[in-house]
Amino acid sequence: MKRANAEIIAVGTELLLGQIPNTNAQWISQQLALHGINMFYHSVVGDNLNRVERAFRLAEERSDIIFVTGGLGPTEDDLTREAFQSLSNIEMIEHEPSIKKINNYFAKQQTEMTPNNRKQARVFKGAKVIVNRFGMAPGMIVSANKKIWIFLPGVPREMKQMFTDEVIPYLKEFVSNDDLIKSKIMRFIGIGEAKLEHELREIIEAQHNPTIAPLAQHDGMTIRLTAKGSSEQHVDQMLQETEQQILEKVGSYCYGINNQTMEQTIVDLLRREDIKIASAESLTGGKFMDKLISVPGSSQACRGAIVCYDPQVKMDVLRVSPETIRSKGTVSVECASEMAENVCSLLDANIGISFTGVAGPDAIEGKPVGTVYLGIYADGYKQVEKFTFHGDRETIRERTVLKGFERLFRFIKS
Amino acid sequence: MKRANAEIIAVGTELLLGQIPNTNAQWISQQLALHGINMFYHSVVGDNLNRVERAFRLAEERSDIIFVTGGLGPTEDDLTREAFQSLSNIEMIEHEPSIKKINNYFAKQQTEMTPNNRKQARVFKGAKVIVNRFGMAPGMIVSANKKIWIFLPGVPREMKQMFTDEVIPYLKEFVSNDDLIKSKIMRFIGIGEAKLEHELREIIEAQHNPTIAPLAQHDGMTIRLTAKGSSEQHVDQMLQETEQQILEKVGSYCYGINNQTMEQTIVDLLRREDIKIASAESLTGGKFMDKLISVPGSSQACRGAIVCYDPQVKMDVLRVSPETIRSKGTVSVECASEMAENVCSLLDANIGISFTGVAGPDAIEGKPVGTVYLGIYADGYKQVEKFTFHGDRETIRERTVLKGFERLFRFIKS
Repeated sequence: MKRANAEIIAVGTELLLGQIPNTNAQWISQQLALHGINMFYHSVVGDNLNRVERAFRLAEERSDIIFVTGGLGPTEDDLTREAFQSLSNIEMIEHEPSIKKINNYFAKQQTEMTPNNRKQARVFKGAKVIVNRFGMAPGMIVSANKKIWIFLPGVPREMKQMFTDEVIPYLKEFVSNDDLIKSKIMRFIGIGEAKLEHELREIIEAQHNPTIAPLAQHDGMTIRLTAKGSSEQHVDQMLQETEQQILEKVGSYCYGINNQTMEQTIVDLLRREDIKIASAESLTGGKFMDKLISVPGSSQACRGAIVCYDPQVKMDVLRVSPETIRSKGTVSVECASEMAENVCSLLDANIGISFTGVAGPDAIEGKPVGTVYLGIYADGYKQVEKFTFHGDRETIRERTVLKGFERLFRFIKS
Repeated sequence: MKRANAEIIAVGTELLLGQIPNTNAQWISQQLALHGINMFYHSVVGDNLNRVERAFRLAEERSDIIFVTGGLGPTEDDLTREAFQSLSNIEMIEHEPSIKKINNYFAKQQTEMTPNNRKQARVFKGAKVIVNRFGMAPGMIVSANKKIWIFLPGVPREMKQMFTDEVIPYLKEFVSNDDLIKSKIMRFIGIGEAKLEHELREIIEAQHNPTIAPLAQHDGMTIRLTAKGSSEQHVDQMLQETEQQILEKVGSYCYGINNQTMEQTIVDLLRREDIKIASAESLTGGKFMDKLISVPGSSQACRGAIVCYDPQVKMDVLRVSPETIRSKGTVSVECASEMAENVCSLLDANIGISFTGVAGPDAIEGKPVGTVYLGIYADGYKQVEKFTFHGDRETIRERTVLKGFERLFRFIKS
């Protein structure tokens, strides 16, 4: 079949003022590229009825599939529906499930629904309505004059969910099988970019399909494998083989595939080994435990944490000895060691992990900003390591938590 | 003078494939907004002569100043010059200084200059040539058919330097002093988009300078005020007056201005009142305390937290009575109440805040996913509220933390 040509129109004055970037266009483009649909134009137009309408007319002339993001909300600035109605003359009706959802929302919040909220439930007659799981305004797929219009909200989180759940399956009929492209991402921790590239140099140079692209991320390294082929089975097999070659070289650093996060990997490992963990967190403020608890099923692995940001809490609640704090300070091997051991026993866990250090902006007890002690305690075994991180307060806190994951990952695996 | 209307055309297939974001459009838009030039359209078109030409023709019809980024390089894919020549019929000539620069570059690199590199030195006759300090291809400003065309490279670093050094001074003549533009963002929590608009409808409708633009964010609402005027003082005064009008209507929901975050506001309030806070966190897993501790100076306000994810930790460490947990469950008014009170006294704080609920994916103790109890305890005063949140696990946890900030904000202010 003829390949469909698509374009994206983003509606919103905030984009034209440069207040937010048009990340939606980039993301949708990536998705369409993966699915072999041509993207010929992006455009951005402000919240002005006349100009939105002109952009729609132009799109209708030149494209087969038109994505429109934004302008579906409840305010007077939200003009996507009005502009499309003027173009298509398709009648608008209230979408009962959406009205119910909006009513329910306001009833639950015990606040009054203002009349303009009803506007969000208006859809074009005959449209396929796309459920918005994270917000109010539904999306729509509408056929008009042999063109397909796909209306999605401007909030990236809502747009992405709706695109993934309903637009991609809908678009499958426009995808030819000749240029199937598939990617796989391998995720690494504890190995730097240069070392990873060095280890894999021969494989990378010998290999053109799949391509192998290492990329440094804020939380470790990734390698993207991208394979092209004529069938899904063929492409999958190529990816599988290359993945295997890479794992043979650097498999001990690989913690996950595709969207697997470090915290999911840790929770999976803990559950598999039936290990319960507890953390004692000073500079990290609960961030380590928060990330673990973000993983569904973490209740079978996480006991909890004591966030002992104040030195007094380290003594009163976590029972670090006042003598340790007096003579060694709170940022010390000894304090980190007692924190890990005590949180393990207080919370009846199998592993205790502790974080104490200086996130900044000021030094503490003469220790410079970025000094961090990380302790692990399990079953009589103890280890405390010292690290020095650079960056602002949040960077130091983030890196401390990541280092905690890395060390814990190795500790559980060994 | 008449205000000039501008648009930006980015040329490059890599943008349409989603390989890179169109950060140039955002950046140029920000610059123009600051200088009072209207921006009406962004568009992106691929490296295809016919489509670039069509984009240029459309721009010529509708805009006074047309920015074109990209397509000025040496390869066959770089088609910006060809497309504009076909539109304008302006002759192209070699720009001697650019030819010299390119020759020098290759001489220094001791590599041979390939013929296609000369292409980069071709400029339109009569154009103002813009020197590229970081790369090869010069930019150009060209007048044609009463429209101004500004051609810049696609590499952000080169584009920004050229824009700042030569385009902004050139554009000054299009900026009358009437056109100074300044924005201010007001941040709100605890009020929805529709209600905010409803409350402010009269002000918004009566008001055209400053304009008032509400926008829903994931963590609350913002209102952007944008004022135009002839002097900074005048503009500041207008912003001030409108801000005041808005505060009179919905001031109790406003927590910050411009980049002020909710957690900064809370830490500032706590420090000002010399209040120490502690949290008892079950489903939030430490996220609430982590956000507070991300603020520099939070050590003067935050004692710490007990993350009592496991029911046993609620009893053993937080001393919630086993009878409460047996008869009422961990997701209950009573449990939230004891958690808030006990964490306050255990950590020697002035305010204790507690979070217990069901983040999902599974129900707990017969309570459905999204059920949350939020407790606040201070000095003998207690309050526990029940909420129902929707969404996936992380959404429910995030919304719970935001609700905690909202309730705490109100509590401290009252």
